[in-house]
Formats: sequence, C-alpha cells, structure tokens
Amino acid sequence: MKAVAIVSGGMDSVTLAFKLRHDNPDAEIHLLAFNYGQRHFKELQFAGECAQDIGADFDIVNLTGITHLLAASGSSLVDPNTPVPDGHYAEESMKITVVPNRNAIMLSIATGVAVAEGAEFVATGVHSGDHAIYPDCRPNFIAAMTNAMWEGNEGFAYRDFKIFAPFINISKDQICSIGDELGVDFSKTWSCYKGGEQHCGTCGTCVERREAFSLAGVTDPTIYASVDA
Amino acid sequence: MKAVAIVSGGMDSVTLAFKLRHDNPDAEIHLLAFNYGQRHFKELQFAGECAQDIGADFDIVNLTGITHLLAASGSSLVDPNTPVPDGHYAEESMKITVVPNRNAIMLSIATGVAVAEGAEFVATGVHSGDHAIYPDCRPNFIAAMTNAMWEGNEGFAYRDFKIFAPFINISKDQICSIGDELGVDFSKTWSCYKGGEQHCGTCGTCVERREAFSLAGVTDPTIYASVDA
Repeated sequence: MKAVAIVSGGMDSVTLAFKLRHDNPDAEIHLLAFNYGQRHFKELQFAGECAQDIGADFDIVNLTGITHLLAASGSSLVDPNTPVPDGHYAEESMKITVVPNRNAIMLSIATGVAVAEGAEFVATGVHSGDHAIYPDCRPNFIAAMTNAMWEGNEGFAYRDFKIFAPFINISKDQICSIGDELGVDFSKTWSCYKGGEQHCGTCGTCVERREAFSLAGVTDPTIYASVDA
Repeated sequence: MKAVAIVSGGMDSVTLAFKLRHDNPDAEIHLLAFNYGQRHFKELQFAGECAQDIGADFDIVNLTGITHLLAASGSSLVDPNTPVPDGHYAEESMKITVVPNRNAIMLSIATGVAVAEGAEFVATGVHSGDHAIYPDCRPNFIAAMTNAMWEGNEGFAYRDFKIFAPFINISKDQICSIGDELGVDFSKTWSCYKGGEQHCGTCGTCVERREAFSLAGVTDPTIYASVDA
C-alpha cells in the first residue's frame, strides 16, 4: 500500500504521520512538506526528521515563487509587513494569518503526486480547532475537495482514492494524547508562526499548543520565550 | 473589476485572454502561466506576449520542483523517457500525455492569487475537445472544483467568486473562429507537445490544431515540420 501525507512539522501532522505508520506498518509512505515562504519555514526541518523517524520518503515542495502573489492578501504568515498577532487561535483577529487557498494548493499537488505514484490516499492533519478561522480546514471543504480530486482524475487515480483527514472532528488536545500514545517526541515538532529561535509562547498557534498539552495532561517539552499572553 | 486567467500560450487560452479583454475593457487582468517542466515550455513566451498584447499583468509560476514527482506517472509531457505520441488528440493512446491533476494544481494556485487580489473569477480555456482524454477539463470537474474553491475560501473570496470556463462546451474550431474575430494573431500561439523549433504537425495537439483551423475556415499561419500524420 502507498500513501501520501502532507506534513508541516507541527504536532498535528507529525502525529498524523506516526499514526499512518502505526496503522500501516508495511506501507510506502511519502511525506510532502511545503515551503510557501512562511515565516516559520523552520518547521520543515521537523517534517524531515519525522520522515526519518517513521521510515518515509520525503520531499519539500518549493512554492516560494508564489509567496509574493499570495502576500497580496496581507497574510501575516507570508507578508513580511504584517506582524503575527498574539492571542487565542480561534479569535477573529487570527484571520490575518490565513494564507489564501493554502490547503487546496497543497492537496492538489499532493493528489497529483499520489495519482502519479498510485497511492491510495492523501492524508492531512486538519482538526476541529482549525475550523473557526480557516475555511480550508473545515469538513465541507475536505468533502468538496475530495469530490473535485475524484472528478479531476477519473480513470487515473486509485479506484478508492480519497483525502484522509482522520483528525477533522477531534481537538488538538486529543491529537496530543494520540501522539503521546504513539511515542511522538513533541520536542521535534514546531508550531510558532513567528519562526524565531524559540517558540514565542504568545502567538495564536503557541497559545493553542500550550493549551493542547495542558488539556491532554501531557508534559509539554517546549521552551517558550514567554507565557504571559 | 479584477480577474485572474490561466494562460499557457496555446490558441485556446490566448483567445480566452483576448475575450476577457474585449468583454472587460477596464478590468485589471492578471495572466498566470505555469512552468511545470513541460517539454513544450516554449509555449510560455507566447503567454507573456499575449499579456503585453492585452495589457495584463503577467507571472510565470515556477513548479519545476514537482516535475520529477509528477513524472512518476510516466506522462510524456513531463517524463523525458516517455515519447510524445503521434495521432489524433482524442485517441486512447493520448492518455499518456495526461499530467496528473494539472488543472487542479493550476486552478488552486490561481484561486489563491485571485483571493489575495480580490479578483472576481479565475478563467480557464478548457474546451469540449479536451473532455475525451483529460478528466480535469470536463464540466463535472470544473463544477466540483468551483465548489471546493468556494468552501475553501468562505468569507475571504469575492462574494460571487467563480471559475469561469466560457469554452467548456464549445469546440476548438469554434474557439479558432472567436479568436479570429477578436484579432488574435495565431502565429503568436504554441500548441506542439514536442516543443521543438517548429510545430511537429503530427502529435495529438498539432493534429487537433490543424483540424481546428481547417474546420473554422481560418488561415493557419503555423509552420509545421510535417503534415503526414
């Protein structure tokens, strides 16, 4: 069995990769990470380490040629002139962190690779905590995108091809618990949008990360620059 | 009004661009061409000339980082070890020219740019002659993809955002007639999959091109290396 998975190097997608390996010990797994010019491109090194840890093929897809085009949105993740906001991940103010159509772009490329390789599915680590701000992480989008990928590759894709999003209706703290059970070393994952030396501790995704460990009752190995959000 | 259009430099997409300019004289039009490592990347220069001709912004999106991944399909357009077949465009043997998920990849990126720029639509030149071989040119795919782009950008895309495919139910010879009426200089378009010095005249897309001019009764300015298909 072959599978393709989109892995950023964050705790959700690294847990996803560990789960894929656990559930499919003999599968040929191909992890794809994407460099779209995100401030926190340092996350990608952790995606690569994850691939080594689970014995998967690994490629970084270079999309930096479109960074300046997507930055016209003023997204703080790709526009150097828009600061990353502090606060809770689900606050309205976090909409400035949306990168237009990011998941569709990554899923389209991953599906192209999956069809080329005869893979059974493309896996993505989107979860329920993403739904509030990011439309391209919601169940309706994943369902619509699955349908589009079906139609666009009729007769070429694996006969039961699908987008596999096993975390789509569970929370980040549940993912944290699953990762903990699967032996994920969370010190080898990256969340912070600011992409500094250490996790800042106060941006939306750092707040969400801290909360997930706390709710899951899992020891957080992360060094945060500040926890005074 | 703002619009984004996917232009390869072929006669369909160049006619599309001329039509967009004709129908929207004051629009800010952004043409996107894609370098995915296709043999016939020389088509891209004609996309750039088209942008100049209609007064549009122009970018070439560099996707050559995924060429080797998509080439695992054995597509003759991106795998240097698979020759481009001669014959009619709609023959079964032409399936070897399919690049997995190509239109979804291009439409996803174009939609990201459109959302970033507040454009009303993304235009694509797919037409009825493409339907036989290319699943990602069929009405069902365009409808499914439109829905996916809607869901994935809810609250961020232009309120009536759509994928605009005005040629989807018309034939290439009808496109040829439309282009002729709009003043397209077809000598500044490229079709041949082989990407040589001249159009080969015998590959699927050259045969289709010659047929379109013939059926439309439009003088074909193309120099073909051979017309003995």
